[in-house]
Amino acid sequence: MSLSPYWLRDNCPCDGCRDPRNGQKLFQITDLPEDLAVVESTEAGGVLEVVWSDGHRSRYPLEWFDERGEDEQGAGDGRTEQGKRLWRAADFARGLPEAEWSAYVTEPAEQVAVLSAVRRFGFAVLRGVPEVEGQVLKVAETFGYVRETNYGKLFDVRVEADPNNLAFTSAAIAPHTDNPYRDPVPTLQLLHCLRNESDGGDSGLVDGFHAAALLREESPEDFAVLTRTPVPFVFRDRATELRAEQPLIGVDAVGRIREVRFNNRSIGTLRGLSTAELDAFYAAYRRFAAITLRPELQLDFRLGPGDCLIFDNVRLLHARTAFEQQGSRHLQGCYADLDSLASTLAVLGRRATALDAIEELFDGEGAGEYLGEAVTMAQHMLQAGALAEAAGAPDHLVVAALLHDIGHFGGSSLELMQGQDNRHSHTGADWLARWFGPEVTEPIRLHVAAKRYLCAVEPSYRAQLSEASEYTLQVQGGPMDTEQAAAFAALPGAADAVAVRRWDDQAKDAAVATPGVEHFRPLLSRLFG
Amino acid sequence: MSLSPYWLRDNCPCDGCRDPRNGQKLFQITDLPEDLAVVESTEAGGVLEVVWSDGHRSRYPLEWFDERGEDEQGAGDGRTEQGKRLWRAADFARGLPEAEWSAYVTEPAEQVAVLSAVRRFGFAVLRGVPEVEGQVLKVAETFGYVRETNYGKLFDVRVEADPNNLAFTSAAIAPHTDNPYRDPVPTLQLLHCLRNESDGGDSGLVDGFHAAALLREESPEDFAVLTRTPVPFVFRDRATELRAEQPLIGVDAVGRIREVRFNNRSIGTLRGLSTAELDAFYAAYRRFAAITLRPELQLDFRLGPGDCLIFDNVRLLHARTAFEQQGSRHLQGCYADLDSLASTLAVLGRRATALDAIEELFDGEGAGEYLGEAVTMAQHMLQAGALAEAAGAPDHLVVAALLHDIGHFGGSSLELMQGQDNRHSHTGADWLARWFGPEVTEPIRLHVAAKRYLCAVEPSYRAQLSEASEYTLQVQGGPMDTEQAAAFAALPGAADAVAVRRWDDQAKDAAVATPGVEHFRPLLSRLFG
Repeated sequence: MSLSPYWLRDNCPCDGCRDPRNGQKLFQITDLPEDLAVVESTEAGGVLEVVWSDGHRSRYPLEWFDERGEDEQGAGDGRTEQGKRLWRAADFARGLPEAEWSAYVTEPAEQVAVLSAVRRFGFAVLRGVPEVEGQVLKVAETFGYVRETNYGKLFDVRVEADPNNLAFTSAAIAPHTDNPYRDPVPTLQLLHCLRNESDGGDSGLVDGFHAAALLREESPEDFAVLTRTPVPFVFRDRATELRAEQPLIGVDAVGRIREVRFNNRSIGTLRGLSTAELDAFYAAYRRFAAITLRPELQLDFRLGPGDCLIFDNVRLLHARTAFEQQGSRHLQGCYADLDSLASTLAVLGRRATALDAIEELFDGEGAGEYLGEAVTMAQHMLQAGALAEAAGAPDHLVVAALLHDIGHFGGSSLELMQGQDNRHSHTGADWLARWFGPEVTEPIRLHVAAKRYLCAVEPSYRAQLSEASEYTLQVQGGPMDTEQAAAFAALPGAADAVAVRRWDDQAKDAAVATPGVEHFRPLLSRLFG
Repeated sequence: MSLSPYWLRDNCPCDGCRDPRNGQKLFQITDLPEDLAVVESTEAGGVLEVVWSDGHRSRYPLEWFDERGEDEQGAGDGRTEQGKRLWRAADFARGLPEAEWSAYVTEPAEQVAVLSAVRRFGFAVLRGVPEVEGQVLKVAETFGYVRETNYGKLFDVRVEADPNNLAFTSAAIAPHTDNPYRDPVPTLQLLHCLRNESDGGDSGLVDGFHAAALLREESPEDFAVLTRTPVPFVFRDRATELRAEQPLIGVDAVGRIREVRFNNRSIGTLRGLSTAELDAFYAAYRRFAAITLRPELQLDFRLGPGDCLIFDNVRLLHARTAFEQQGSRHLQGCYADLDSLASTLAVLGRRATALDAIEELFDGEGAGEYLGEAVTMAQHMLQAGALAEAAGAPDHLVVAALLHDIGHFGGSSLELMQGQDNRHSHTGADWLARWFGPEVTEPIRLHVAAKRYLCAVEPSYRAQLSEASEYTLQVQGGPMDTEQAAAFAALPGAADAVAVRRWDDQAKDAAVATPGVEHFRPLLSRLFG
């Protein structure tokens, strides 16, 4: 295997190279010596072990070399044309990507579907969003942060007496992106319909990436001209003077379409180009504009009260038909950004994966023997969770009780029975810390110590330990001395750990029926974060 | 003169092509016919008049063809290396670009100096910023909008027990930009020092554009590699999973350095490149990183309590020396964006220009005859302003009184005396609307109508008009009839217009001394917006 040495070393996963708490690198690339080389490399047990010329050792799981491993999107950061589904209007003949607000806010899978649609198609519609002023900000906050602009945190789209922008008149508006004169441009727009009783005022969307891809196909030279000509976008009113120079079609470092800015209204004066260059730009611009107006590209629909459209403002062009000044039409909008939306989507995905993994552990390994007790590990933990729930414990303690022994999984339980402390409380807490906060993980981390603590301060406690538990007590270090017990009691989470410990001790009754792990899924979902 | 026809037509300044209220274009580029051509063009009186093949006529002031006219920056949108002053540490041997907070918030010229420094050098320091938690948000709001991220609207930089980011530990941090894993990345960062009593914890800044320019000079091929290799930046914690693929050095469509992202800690795994490509990337990356560490590039200074550093996060790299965990160090930071900062700067510049223009009008043309009255136009308006001020009128009415006849300027007064209504009230109101709100412009717009109204409803009013004013009354349409008077009285601003009118009528006394126009400058400054 021929590997680039600096690349390989830069990805060393050891605790000295990466902060285990947050995964950030702890060294600078310039810290590495000149002429760094691999001195020795061995593959064993699914791991590539490398000894470096500076003496450092790295261990890489072989699966890490599988490219598809890390990059779940299969498409870099998911922002270029690669990984998008380019569309035309007919592709939505059977309906728009949409969901009910009530389902969206309660069911993670619905939220995943909506946010995925925004990433994949560039838009989605939420139905039944409460028709309350300012609600659009709450919609944005379900996946990200509102981006304030000169139009405010929130803007009202209705006819204004002295508009500073064509959007606030009753005129038709051709397909365009918003705020091209901003840099950074807001990458998402939300429009929430409160009223639409006027004639006209329908919405239209055009996939700007598709239009750009058509231009590239039909006239590659025009496409090239638009990607390499910086266009000055300008906006001016009494309190604002914005100017951004960006091409109409932005491509990434390797030429993939990444951003479309298209707004005829706010293109300022191109300067410093020759007449031939201006002619070429205007020919390409007119050709691209004509493509965006092709009827087969424009998806028309009408936003009704309670509908909230979320769309990608650096990909989709949006349009509006003219409407009667008389009829009442009122939308509220705001801007937000795609990066946070993608993060929310990734975290939701990761949580769904975690739930599945937890359920699998209960159903699979969990069916195994529990350190000599009469119950399986899964029964033991389910009983502990059920006991906590029955005791009216707060959510985080029910979860802590349910998952307190998860560190036993992974085939290491046997080691404990063979006389080694496998530190299962720490292993479990660390694993769970990827998904749960310290209110869940710390009682788990301390639940073994809590046993040693209780044995010290409650003589009657030790007497009731099971035989297996009395055995592991010795492995774990025996009862605490007075000083240790005082130090333990002072720890944050000590009281919670003691509570978890007591449910742990009671949860070994083979005669008790327990709910399945799926019973706890909604609770686990709520506690993520 | 050979001009690109579509370019020329796209810039037609007529009211049919551009909304006069906001300057936005009212036509689509696709509305223009195929084979658009100039049929006839004539130059006269400083104007190029063009007749088009579709019958449209355009008039372009010749000065508009002067490239420097529109683009005041001389450098596009001012975001690339062009128009920046690239620096090394020694350039600030005599001091940093800085200002006192108290001056910054009260004197527009100080604010201009600070914001210009951020645009030109990439940073500035405010001193004496109140040492109050949350104050950094108020600093950001003086020129733009706070950009919320996963770190919150505001983040605290001090040692944390379980940090999700190295910034919240006491470790030294090498020069880097923040949030490279966001797209859009926040383009500005603010750091406000509340306490810094620890040993160490000094700040360092490096001009990343300069470092990139040095790389281009010393090793053009390495520079090219860094501009064309998308780098995955990643950040992950329990609630966040951000990923952005961008090159370390971003250039604009014509190759100018526009953005630097440099953060060794959060560079993820580059995938999909050959070993040779990875070797080339790492060689270039190491060379660039070494340049950023050159001591002559790093400007070191210490933030003390009350200091607030504002810096360009897509140009400057910032660093921190290690500090003692014991000593108390507390900074608060937030992110914002360069586009709004540039807008604020442009508007401040425009207002300063407007103030100068107004003062010049008073001093220049204002010294001319005022329609047959005994006072000059300037004396007349200054008297009106002083009368309003003496009457304790609100600011907007003092300004309206001071500027009510500004529409007479520009050489058109004579036309009025020759028997034409030059609609000076409208001309003045429209001109002033570029800077003032309707509370100032509407009373001015209505002040001629107010005379006709008062003549209708107050017989004694007409009796006291000056001879010249009685003459112009006829030109302006004579007294209103009953219906007109009722309609006028119902207009918003009518009462204010009547008040302005009365000061107008009284302000014709050659014997009265008036303050100079500079007396009103602070008031005019306050009223802009």
